[in-house]
Amino acid sequence: MTNVMTASPLSVPDEDGVDVAALGEVLLGQWAEVRLMARELAGRPELHKVEGLSHTEHRKRVYDQLGILVENNAVHRAFPSRLGGSNDPGGNVAGFEELVIADPSLQIKGGVQWGLFGSAVMHLGNQEHQDKWLPGIMSVEIPGCFAMTEIGHGSDVASIATTATYDPKTQEFVINTPFRAAWKEYIGNAAVDGLAAVVFAQLITKSVNHGVHAFYVELRDPTTKKFLPGVQGLDDNIKGGLNGIDNGRLAFNSVRIPRTNLLNRYGDVAVDGTYSSPIASPGRRFFTMLGTLVQGRVSLNGAAVAASKVGLKIAIQYATERRQFNAASDTEEVVLLDYQRHQRRLLPLLATTYAAAFAHEELLVKFDDVFSGAHDTDEDRQDLETLAAALKSLTTWHALDTLQECREACGGAGFMVENRLTSLRADLDVYATFEGDNTVLLQLVAKRLLGDYSKEFRNLDFGVLARFFAGQAADLTINKTGLRQVAQFVADSGSAQKSAKALKDADTQNQMLADRVQTMVAEVAGALREAAKLPKEKGAEVFNAHQNELIEAARAHAELLQWEAFTAALERVKDPGTKRVLTRLRDLFGLTLIEKHLDWYLMNGRISMQRARTLSPYINRILAKLRPHAVDLVDAFGYGPEHLRATIATGIERERQDEARDYYRELRASSHAPIDEKTLIQKAKAASKK
Amino acid sequence: MTNVMTASPLSVPDEDGVDVAALGEVLLGQWAEVRLMARELAGRPELHKVEGLSHTEHRKRVYDQLGILVENNAVHRAFPSRLGGSNDPGGNVAGFEELVIADPSLQIKGGVQWGLFGSAVMHLGNQEHQDKWLPGIMSVEIPGCFAMTEIGHGSDVASIATTATYDPKTQEFVINTPFRAAWKEYIGNAAVDGLAAVVFAQLITKSVNHGVHAFYVELRDPTTKKFLPGVQGLDDNIKGGLNGIDNGRLAFNSVRIPRTNLLNRYGDVAVDGTYSSPIASPGRRFFTMLGTLVQGRVSLNGAAVAASKVGLKIAIQYATERRQFNAASDTEEVVLLDYQRHQRRLLPLLATTYAAAFAHEELLVKFDDVFSGAHDTDEDRQDLETLAAALKSLTTWHALDTLQECREACGGAGFMVENRLTSLRADLDVYATFEGDNTVLLQLVAKRLLGDYSKEFRNLDFGVLARFFAGQAADLTINKTGLRQVAQFVADSGSAQKSAKALKDADTQNQMLADRVQTMVAEVAGALREAAKLPKEKGAEVFNAHQNELIEAARAHAELLQWEAFTAALERVKDPGTKRVLTRLRDLFGLTLIEKHLDWYLMNGRISMQRARTLSPYINRILAKLRPHAVDLVDAFGYGPEHLRATIATGIERERQDEARDYYRELRASSHAPIDEKTLIQKAKAASKK
Repeated sequence: MTNVMTASPLSVPDEDGVDVAALGEVLLGQWAEVRLMARELAGRPELHKVEGLSHTEHRKRVYDQLGILVENNAVHRAFPSRLGGSNDPGGNVAGFEELVIADPSLQIKGGVQWGLFGSAVMHLGNQEHQDKWLPGIMSVEIPGCFAMTEIGHGSDVASIATTATYDPKTQEFVINTPFRAAWKEYIGNAAVDGLAAVVFAQLITKSVNHGVHAFYVELRDPTTKKFLPGVQGLDDNIKGGLNGIDNGRLAFNSVRIPRTNLLNRYGDVAVDGTYSSPIASPGRRFFTMLGTLVQGRVSLNGAAVAASKVGLKIAIQYATERRQFNAASDTEEVVLLDYQRHQRRLLPLLATTYAAAFAHEELLVKFDDVFSGAHDTDEDRQDLETLAAALKSLTTWHALDTLQECREACGGAGFMVENRLTSLRADLDVYATFEGDNTVLLQLVAKRLLGDYSKEFRNLDFGVLARFFAGQAADLTINKTGLRQVAQFVADSGSAQKSAKALKDADTQNQMLADRVQTMVAEVAGALREAAKLPKEKGAEVFNAHQNELIEAARAHAELLQWEAFTAALERVKDPGTKRVLTRLRDLFGLTLIEKHLDWYLMNGRISMQRARTLSPYINRILAKLRPHAVDLVDAFGYGPEHLRATIATGIERERQDEARDYYRELRASSHAPIDEKTLIQKAKAASKK
Repeated sequence: MTNVMTASPLSVPDEDGVDVAALGEVLLGQWAEVRLMARELAGRPELHKVEGLSHTEHRKRVYDQLGILVENNAVHRAFPSRLGGSNDPGGNVAGFEELVIADPSLQIKGGVQWGLFGSAVMHLGNQEHQDKWLPGIMSVEIPGCFAMTEIGHGSDVASIATTATYDPKTQEFVINTPFRAAWKEYIGNAAVDGLAAVVFAQLITKSVNHGVHAFYVELRDPTTKKFLPGVQGLDDNIKGGLNGIDNGRLAFNSVRIPRTNLLNRYGDVAVDGTYSSPIASPGRRFFTMLGTLVQGRVSLNGAAVAASKVGLKIAIQYATERRQFNAASDTEEVVLLDYQRHQRRLLPLLATTYAAAFAHEELLVKFDDVFSGAHDTDEDRQDLETLAAALKSLTTWHALDTLQECREACGGAGFMVENRLTSLRADLDVYATFEGDNTVLLQLVAKRLLGDYSKEFRNLDFGVLARFFAGQAADLTINKTGLRQVAQFVADSGSAQKSAKALKDADTQNQMLADRVQTMVAEVAGALREAAKLPKEKGAEVFNAHQNELIEAARAHAELLQWEAFTAALERVKDPGTKRVLTRLRDLFGLTLIEKHLDWYLMNGRISMQRARTLSPYINRILAKLRPHAVDLVDAFGYGPEHLRATIATGIERERQDEARDYYRELRASSHAPIDEKTLIQKAKAASKK
């Protein structure tokens, strides 16, 4: 079903036509209904970002919007049903991530309130904590903070310096910020709205530090909104985006809280100061506590996919209407998307967005499996976290690349805020470094890959360089099942392929992508095996010398996961024409990955020079074949004008072009059209030759 | 001279130390004095961007800042000395581009007023025009617009639709906007301040269209600031950046201006309507008129270099202070920049910034040569334009990549507006598509490369697809001298290199980079030669099938130009230690280019698999060697705190880290330091084994 309104003359429906509605349903996935409800909500003007507000006005607006979400029962799905929720973790995230299309600030502010602050009380607290605080958190009567990050420790949570020291005399914890680097920083709701916070601090009792635990701390007087004694704050003020959120700093000067404010699910302190925990190992305990908060990464992944979809719909729509060089005298119908370079710029991003969308759906199912309790072993949790880390990093970077390319592909129009792209990009920017810096997340993935590759790397620790490894999963017994297994990758992809066309074969793509991951991991492992025998400092040096390869191996693994998810999703597409188009899009994804890493394939003897040279032209031919379906493929994302809110996506460019063409047509038909000087010169030349 | 304040323990001064001051002078280049004066000015608070202003407030502030520039005699260097200028085109641009560090809006608003509006009157008008309008333009008594771009025609100026039809009865031109796509769009000064405009329109007289000419048109009543009859305008409102500029749209409904308002240097209309021009060919005339405005691209190139320098100084300074994983118990001194990945992220960008800076200096000299009249042949002008197109596109993209990488490398701190990076990036974003869309500019460069390669391509025109070629230089006889000659490139770089280390040899780098350009151009030329024989439409298809390669060839050429400029600049460095470091930085630039295109070198048999595999580790070793000099290399840029204006570049991170370390040191020395639970467990295990 080619959209008649937007079809270019080149997009004549053929046997490979896309059934937009059916493909749309495949994309909506398991939580289709929740998504559609959330989109209905996100389409309402009162929830939209208003450009040009001061950050103060924007904060106020977003705060009020939280109330609208509550009124519409849009944000409580994850909470226990006894408190008005519906025990639906997957649906909750699916709904949440769609809010990014109303205003990313709203998505993140809601994420802070319910996804982090509320989740921490729910997952780290006991039933009493839940009953006491969750109702107020759910209704936003208690706006709250998730006070984990400190200025001095971005991604290294284990090393935070805030302390919570138990005082048995008063049965209180004393929360303290020992120095400036220990101030809680970038904390949403901290600058203005937060009445309370879940504060992460080193729990010290009886002179023993039991590691990071979470404490419920009141921050402000609910009436005066002034800080309570001992609490200090600073406003982070204006940021590169997300200015609807009041981020700020917090510090605690011997703030006393009741012993029972320790969220004590994984560690408790008795009245006399005796510490106890259901998890004996401090490392595993820390890992388990942090693991309950993985949903932040999951929902960022989904939001980044949604933003990429919006960007591509805007840019591809415009590209099928815009004529870059439409001389008045020309009747040719060539639009931007007919240019090879424009296809090169946008269509691989479209393919990657499909891959990211299908991979996100798998992540969401995995997340729901774990958090609904359906499949909730340690293994499942670790698989989930590795998957979330791998996908979140790739997808959030992809969203930035996509929005920037879309903005540039729309030229000056792309720069206007009314066309949405710059605003979305600015808001999404920080997704690449919050909830785990992408570079650090990829190193966590690499650690898992090494561990799966060989047992000896499971407790990898080369001193400070590898601290993020040690801090995360040192005590877990890692099992190979669950995640895609490196060991199962087929190493031999050197079988003869006559030309790039042979790469169209899905098994070949799979082999090549998988082989690359395995080989890269094996190579790094070989180097690190040597390092393990060296003195600690020297070992750290060797580790550092392979850090870049390690990260690239993790990226390769994440790309493979996306490719596999895309391929698996093809099974869910029933219409044969749609399936052919989508298979081609998957091929584009796979082949542009191989093209991106072509140097690797060449220098490792995985592809011959001759075959490699045919790859790029072959990709160009796929682009040309996909071009007629480009609008259908972005229409299947299902976003309407109320979600896009971009002037250039409304068909206005086509109207203007049509008006101009009509004008010239009439002018040429009339008697008063001026003659071009060039034409006169040519005529004169011709005449002089006679 | 290693900066003691900022030196990491690894940056112990060695024989390869950088003489920061001397290197700084090399970087300042030919217009050092002007640059230093401009930087002094750009350092003043009254010229700084204030974050968080509404776009209305920001516009007002920037408008007032223009007055400050005038008072300080900072912006009139290019104008004739008889009117108070100093006939110094090179110095003028050098000074202008430094204003970007005060506020990019100020740079661009000034660029609109003096660099475009004023330049058009100066270069396209006669002495009478200059005497009449330039004083008011120079003093900002007449804020004005440069009304060239139309909504329907971004980069295709030849096709603009606005008409200026001569009416001999009243001796007036009638300016008209025939349809909506012909509205002038994105015009600086149009929304609020502009009292007049240089309007580009198709000049029609005696029923002949003589092509695009420039007309001086009054827009608003100087007293009421209301539009004059027939003039319409719209406010472009908020943009992705540069919100200190009041961009807007303009349309003309039969607006009548005196015949003498035609800026008639290259084309005039007599009282009776007879057209005359000193340039017979309409194509060459158009090209000559547009060519006078190349300084916009030149100054964007310089501004992009300056912004990259500021970004790198901030991120590298922070990276030498920040410890990502500094456990309380650890005394190791590893900072971010000691990590291989962090070096990989920032140091190649630093090398490219040096290359871009040196290439810009060459561009500026060339520009000054042409516009001072010292070397001002058609050839010189075309070389200048090709060089400006090649460098502007690479450098503006580089600035965006650099600012983004710097922002991410600073984590959450990078996202705070107080650390400058996001704000600079947002403002620089549009540099990639204005004053010539980068993708279109690279195609202009490609056209020149093909023309130099073979005469048959000099009048390349495959229909609408190649219109930008036809529109630009169709009638010019292109001479091979002037620009780097493709024909002189040494094709044979296949000589045996035992390892990547051999690539350290400058000649080898040069050969490899040059060979790639030549081979790519030759390959595209071969394909297009076939296309020329085909029917027009089929030919256009073949052309389109090679568009991507063509653009990549142009990019490769621009990269080579940067490499050559960097290499030439090494000769200007006298201190041996500095020269060694800078040569290594040039090697890093050259080798990362080869690494980026390694697939090409491999699949074209220019490098063996074995050698290719040694390249990446070799680059990693260069990074490690450069790391101790990183701070010196950014300090040589010469920007002080008044230019950086980033909290994290002030040493605050080091202070916080020191405070934290001191705290833990004291705590460990005291009797009340808590013991880690992990330590207790280990002790217990050890005890149980006894």
